[in-house]
Amino acid sequence: MALGALKIRTESRDEFLKQIKEVNRTLAATRPTARNLFWAIDRMQQVAEAGNDPKQIKKALVDEAVNIHSEQIEADQKLSQFGAGLIEDGFTVLTHCNTGALATGGYGTALGVIKRAHEQGKKVRVIATETRPLLQGARLTAWELKRADIPFKLITDSMAGHFMSRDEVDCVIVGADRIAANGYTANKIGTYTLAVLANAHGIPFYVAAPTSTIDMSLTSGYQIPIEERSPDEVTHIQGVAIAPEGTEVFNPAFDITPSQYITAIITERGIIRKPYGEGLRGVTKNA
Amino acid sequence: MALGALKIRTESRDEFLKQIKEVNRTLAATRPTARNLFWAIDRMQQVAEAGNDPKQIKKALVDEAVNIHSEQIEADQKLSQFGAGLIEDGFTVLTHCNTGALATGGYGTALGVIKRAHEQGKKVRVIATETRPLLQGARLTAWELKRADIPFKLITDSMAGHFMSRDEVDCVIVGADRIAANGYTANKIGTYTLAVLANAHGIPFYVAAPTSTIDMSLTSGYQIPIEERSPDEVTHIQGVAIAPEGTEVFNPAFDITPSQYITAIITERGIIRKPYGEGLRGVTKNA
Repeated sequence: MALGALKIRTESRDEFLKQIKEVNRTLAATRPTARNLFWAIDRMQQVAEAGNDPKQIKKALVDEAVNIHSEQIEADQKLSQFGAGLIEDGFTVLTHCNTGALATGGYGTALGVIKRAHEQGKKVRVIATETRPLLQGARLTAWELKRADIPFKLITDSMAGHFMSRDEVDCVIVGADRIAANGYTANKIGTYTLAVLANAHGIPFYVAAPTSTIDMSLTSGYQIPIEERSPDEVTHIQGVAIAPEGTEVFNPAFDITPSQYITAIITERGIIRKPYGEGLRGVTKNA
Repeated sequence: MALGALKIRTESRDEFLKQIKEVNRTLAATRPTARNLFWAIDRMQQVAEAGNDPKQIKKALVDEAVNIHSEQIEADQKLSQFGAGLIEDGFTVLTHCNTGALATGGYGTALGVIKRAHEQGKKVRVIATETRPLLQGARLTAWELKRADIPFKLITDSMAGHFMSRDEVDCVIVGADRIAANGYTANKIGTYTLAVLANAHGIPFYVAAPTSTIDMSLTSGYQIPIEERSPDEVTHIQGVAIAPEGTEVFNPAFDITPSQYITAIITERGIIRKPYGEGLRGVTKNA
């Protein structure tokens, strides 16, 4: 929004607000599922509308963008500190997709919790799922874990149940794209499968996310829109075809995990446990 | 074994048996998990040892190989006929890996059941998992389903739970590499995850395999050796690196599904239900 604002060439407040609304719409149309996107755009929109003239609004938007970034880093660090309390020395933690600095622009959420536990001197080992179709686990999480010097093994998504059945996973931590008022959580496709598996094996399943991810306007997680992405992501890997031409696919980018499968939700304002409705109201009040 | 025998150049029975034993050992060392491999090698070994001279043994081995192939096709067709009775008109069947003619040399096992139901005029739709790491679902099953004109969608392995939670899967059918005397089943990695998911959603989970897959010498499935394969299969896809260099992986090629997750085992001698011990003894008697 700030970068879009800087490119607007007008001295009329009305014309500026018209054009910034267009920037807003363009950004809002990029992806439907994650709550933070709309949360940040809305916040920037409010700053724009509260301003007097384009020059002043541009400065205010840049300042607000920097504020959001700083707050995000702080939120990540706080929730990582809370979450690290759930990780015991010697734990093997299974995580999905990427939730580190590459994904959050801050310190990380689920991966932040793991990093913080590691920084506290706990021996933590990670099992990272590759996270098909876009392989964020193999490409990004593996890179961040190597950089942080945290021992890990990469697995294909299909192997999670096998390692849980062999008692090789002490807990699962994932991030969230949107959390509804009832605690149901939208996150990267495959998260729900991991939650069902963790439940079947009596393994704690944690969601780590800043409160900006919580959407109190949705009473049920099933109201969260799920982005369906290009078939090419399934039929091709990094440009190489892996299925016969014309193969039809399903490609939902996210799934919904019901709250009964979630042991706790870790936010920068504390750890929330069931029943989630009350706890989520608490951490979002006066937010 | 037959091809190996044809290459042996000796007229001495002892020397021939020494060399055919070497062929046997070479084949037996290729893979540890699947039972059929050892079943077929043992059968050929017995034919070799019962023979009088190399020339006669070579002919007997070729005949036996042709017999095994014919019996395999017949077994596939019989079990597919039994299994098709479990598939109702309008069913969406989820399957994993490849279990068609490409895998079995016959008609197929799990995919044979689906093909037979389709041939019976039932409207059957398939959800095929891509089956990482080696993508047998995307590469082989998708090709066979297209060829058989059966409508299907390809998904990544991580999506199975999502579609089960949306009531879009009526049953799961998979093959087997080895079935222990207690019904515990070794099959392609990811099978166990699908079985846990099916159980959590009340969806029938079927294993389709010829009786040559059953290993009554193992009282528990956890005695089945699990092949661990090259890390490259996880870190690379068709030669393209998908993870940072030096990334460590786990790569078990199979997992074990306990019998409590298996609704029925479909063999060429009938459909077996719990308790499996008795039923498995029955279909392997005088085999």
